Amino acid sequence: MPDLPELGDAPLKQDRIVTAPVAGFTAGAAAAGVRKDGRVDVALIAGEEAYPAAALFTRNRLAAAPVQVARRHVSGGRLRAVLANSGCANAATGEKGLEACRAACRAAAAALGCSEEEIFPCSTGVIGQLLPAAKIEAALPGLAAGLSPEGLPLAEGAIMTTDAFKKMSEVSVTIQGKPVRVAGLAKGAGMIRPDMATMLAFVLTDAAASPEALAKALGIAAELSFHRASVDGDTSTNDTLLLWASGKAGNRELNDNEPELAVLAAAVTKVCQELAAMLVADGEGAGHLIRVVVTGAESDEAARHTAFAIAHSPLCKTAFAGRDPNWGRLLSTAGAEAARQGLGFAEEKCRLWIGDALIAEGGVYTDARAEEAAARVMQRERYQIRLDLGLGQGQFWALTSDLDHKYIEINADYRS
Amino acid sequence: MPDLPELGDAPLKQDRIVTAPVAGFTAGAAAAGVRKDGRVDVALIAGEEAYPAAALFTRNRLAAAPVQVARRHVSGGRLRAVLANSGCANAATGEKGLEACRAACRAAAAALGCSEEEIFPCSTGVIGQLLPAAKIEAALPGLAAGLSPEGLPLAEGAIMTTDAFKKMSEVSVTIQGKPVRVAGLAKGAGMIRPDMATMLAFVLTDAAASPEALAKALGIAAELSFHRASVDGDTSTNDTLLLWASGKAGNRELNDNEPELAVLAAAVTKVCQELAAMLVADGEGAGHLIRVVVTGAESDEAARHTAFAIAHSPLCKTAFAGRDPNWGRLLSTAGAEAARQGLGFAEEKCRLWIGDALIAEGGVYTDARAEEAAARVMQRERYQIRLDLGLGQGQFWALTSDLDHKYIEINADYRS
Repeated sequence: MPDLPELGDAPLKQDRIVTAPVAGFTAGAAAAGVRKDGRVDVALIAGEEAYPAAALFTRNRLAAAPVQVARRHVSGGRLRAVLANSGCANAATGEKGLEACRAACRAAAAALGCSEEEIFPCSTGVIGQLLPAAKIEAALPGLAAGLSPEGLPLAEGAIMTTDAFKKMSEVSVTIQGKPVRVAGLAKGAGMIRPDMATMLAFVLTDAAASPEALAKALGIAAELSFHRASVDGDTSTNDTLLLWASGKAGNRELNDNEPELAVLAAAVTKVCQELAAMLVADGEGAGHLIRVVVTGAESDEAARHTAFAIAHSPLCKTAFAGRDPNWGRLLSTAGAEAARQGLGFAEEKCRLWIGDALIAEGGVYTDARAEEAAARVMQRERYQIRLDLGLGQGQFWALTSDLDHKYIEINADYRS
Repeated sequence: MPDLPELGDAPLKQDRIVTAPVAGFTAGAAAAGVRKDGRVDVALIAGEEAYPAAALFTRNRLAAAPVQVARRHVSGGRLRAVLANSGCANAATGEKGLEACRAACRAAAAALGCSEEEIFPCSTGVIGQLLPAAKIEAALPGLAAGLSPEGLPLAEGAIMTTDAFKKMSEVSVTIQGKPVRVAGLAKGAGMIRPDMATMLAFVLTDAAASPEALAKALGIAAELSFHRASVDGDTSTNDTLLLWASGKAGNRELNDNEPELAVLAAAVTKVCQELAAMLVADGEGAGHLIRVVVTGAESDEAARHTAFAIAHSPLCKTAFAGRDPNWGRLLSTAGAEAARQGLGFAEEKCRLWIGDALIAEGGVYTDARAEEAAARVMQRERYQIRLDLGLGQGQFWALTSDLDHKYIEINADYRS
């Protein structure tokens, strides 16, 4: 597959922090008391003025109050600040939730001296709990006063929920001879599924670009990153992905049919891919990051169905946790999905690799040497499995994680 | 919902055994050495002669060798014996797997003095391992000699894999003034999903009915039982459901448009519902049997999608394991499925009950008293949740289980 990005080998499951500022942005965090445990729980990221922005949101029909408000605010094309909290999703909270969200936005606008519509609100945490707006209002003057160009890691800390480590990433490129930086921060571990996840991700750049250009770049980046990530097949109420551009790099503002937009889009894609890989690797207890590559499908769409069927399957994911090259389960999952979706499937044409080990060919087991090699691959933190269906030219890849005991520990008692 | 069957309150998770014979059938089991642990692993159930039969099989495109052979053999409409083994699924084994299956059938036919096409082969166990036909051939003369009318519990024991308890059920009805018995035995715990599961289920009756009548009764029964059961959303390679009628009750043979067929169909449905409930309750480590009822959907099909989305969701199922009335996750899962399937969804119209406790109304939390009541309901072994979408008359129900640590223990190391 020519479009396969590097799988990478940076150690997973440890804090990755970007300390260098992105020109034009300041950030900070506070412990406002939304969380019961006293940890920092509110983040503010601000521009010096309103900058162009574009965003993607959950497709869940149960969209949280902040998603509804943020969607409207970003439709204006420019944002002055992101106001994000952990500890409460403010989802399934009805009209009261919308009012609480708007009150928090008004307080942020007052602290920064901008309009309410320039605030981009985000919440993450337990569904069904109303945002305690008064606590956030009380914290905002101090938060605004403490904003700093070095504050992005603080903001990252304030939006983490079940995350086991901090997730940040950066890339530098040159556009029209000007050095441009793209830096992102994300939170999210469970409820990860294509079409967005329980995740907040903010990608900041000092490039100059129109809102339309940012929307185009973000669409490309999401398709090749977050939309290919699966932890548990659930789609959250609060997922939000923002791309926001200060223009301080000094390039001429990119519009949406500028050839140089491809350079910015590639940088945003790289950052989003690293963030997505960290999200999946965190995966609420997961120990492995697995890329599922499907080739030889009758179409790319058929390959997509098959890759996600394996990426979502609890049986395949527990085999990954057990480091067990249970190739029959992988083939069986592909065969079941073919039946569900009405796709072609011929077991005698299937070949399956775990890493470089060809463990099944012609639909049957190859040999013990391949199985031993596959078992060694499955000890790694990151690896790839590839299923070739032998039917055509369709291909797709998706990222998944293993399903370990910790997933249940984390999710059975999440609200306690 | 008028068609809701009794949820029942018999203790789950303990052996349920039917000891009384079904007239016309004998059964037995042997330890042939297919399993590594020396347990009984081959079952034989025989008629005195070939009796009418009908069967349903997995829709997985990766159908095991015994499924391919059994499908052809039952198409003749009459069977002399069922030959089933655990310890090896004989799936993804190609032409060699088919040959091994046919060799086992020939040995059974020789032992019983019938034709190979009257043998119904079934296998369950690890995918990708070839059936050791010679071991089964060696065991068959002894197996055939030891057949007994009281042997059904022995056969049940021989087909168990990860099952924690024996699953049998029986019902008696009257047809044309004749007492008729229907008795079933099943195995299966994981890989349970609608459109069949990793499960073998054999339903025997002494009623007289044509193969076409049996096929009709079996279709009704499966739709209201096994096709509504979900443990982990996976569809196995080997699922098989058989209905087999000796005719010894002495009623006039039922054909497929006989009104009295409804009595037989109802009895078969009851047996299949009890077997399906036991399968889900076993659910590889599960502690609870949960019925997900969706009402007020725009159509029955929409209700079906929503019910199965909740029944399959790892996040909902871990909340069930944690006895946590996390109603927001249930609503969120419904909202996400609505987006995926293009269904209507209006959070302000949603009502959610856990048992009798109305925990969310108008899309928002009701009160702490309802939450406490819901938490008490979730301590029970069996309970019901009901989501009313407030959009129309569509309704559906599905059975699921909780996702507990033991699921991962069982599945991460299944092959070791």
